[in-house]
Amino acid sequence: MPELVPFITPGALLAHWQGHRRLSRRVIAAFPEDKLFTFSVGGMRPFGALALEMLAMALPMVRGAVTGQWDSPSSRDPRPKAEILRLWDETTAALDRLWPQIPTERFQETMTAFGQWPGKAHDLLLYVIDNEIHHRGQGYVYLRSLGLEPPPFYER
Amino acid sequence: MPELVPFITPGALLAHWQGHRRLSRRVIAAFPEDKLFTFSVGGMRPFGALALEMLAMALPMVRGAVTGQWDSPSSRDPRPKAEILRLWDETTAALDRLWPQIPTERFQETMTAFGQWPGKAHDLLLYVIDNEIHHRGQGYVYLRSLGLEPPPFYER
Repeated sequence: MPELVPFITPGALLAHWQGHRRLSRRVIAAFPEDKLFTFSVGGMRPFGALALEMLAMALPMVRGAVTGQWDSPSSRDPRPKAEILRLWDETTAALDRLWPQIPTERFQETMTAFGQWPGKAHDLLLYVIDNEIHHRGQGYVYLRSLGLEPPPFYER
Repeated sequence: MPELVPFITPGALLAHWQGHRRLSRRVIAAFPEDKLFTFSVGGMRPFGALALEMLAMALPMVRGAVTGQWDSPSSRDPRPKAEILRLWDETTAALDRLWPQIPTERFQETMTAFGQWPGKAHDLLLYVIDNEIHHRGQGYVYLRSLGLEPPPFYER
């Protein structure tokens, strides 16, 4: 294989993602407890459900990239905000631990995530990050609609 | 400099971004002409203003990474949807032309975007993409609030 030039290295991409995850954590924390699974705009899913989707994708995708085993056992049932934040912090630590175990050549290889979605590993991992940014942006609209100021987008 | 391992190469990242930009174009196109600069949710900016912000960041950031010259002359004044889509397509072609002119070592180097924001070039470029995803997600809420079905997130 010829030498590949990096746009970004695996370590820098993880740091970039964890920056996004700190912001997403602040958005979860900004929701009033009683609005997390009851409030939404335009008939969309409430933010608590979106946060649980983020959790259901992040660690299972990275674990799959490391092991080739695909499972996403996390329940999507509503739960208290403190429990979501606890799961968030567990995932933060687990991502830091597992990410360096992804073989460096794997990022350019094709894999089939969760037995269903084929793609380059870097595109599948970016999909998880992009999906988090996409739904978090929706959380900003929910917070504004509740009369609450979301955390600044540029702070990570 | 030691050999750096890529998470993703510059060419694959541009392809990933242009995929996002095709989706963003479909979101702009999905807005009724009379809602683009008049409708929003929660007191936020209307989607037309967000689309113009995307345009004001994309090409100027890439041009700056190539030339070290920073300017963002695009006006943010409301304009017809067809004009925004025309600017979008011009930017698509200009990004394809300019991106390969970014020196490959530049992505890991520090620069000060628009004379104000210092950072690694890859982080500054990702900021532009992330900002597009963030605001486009808000456009999804606006469309749903208008009773319109947004284009699927996973189609690029």
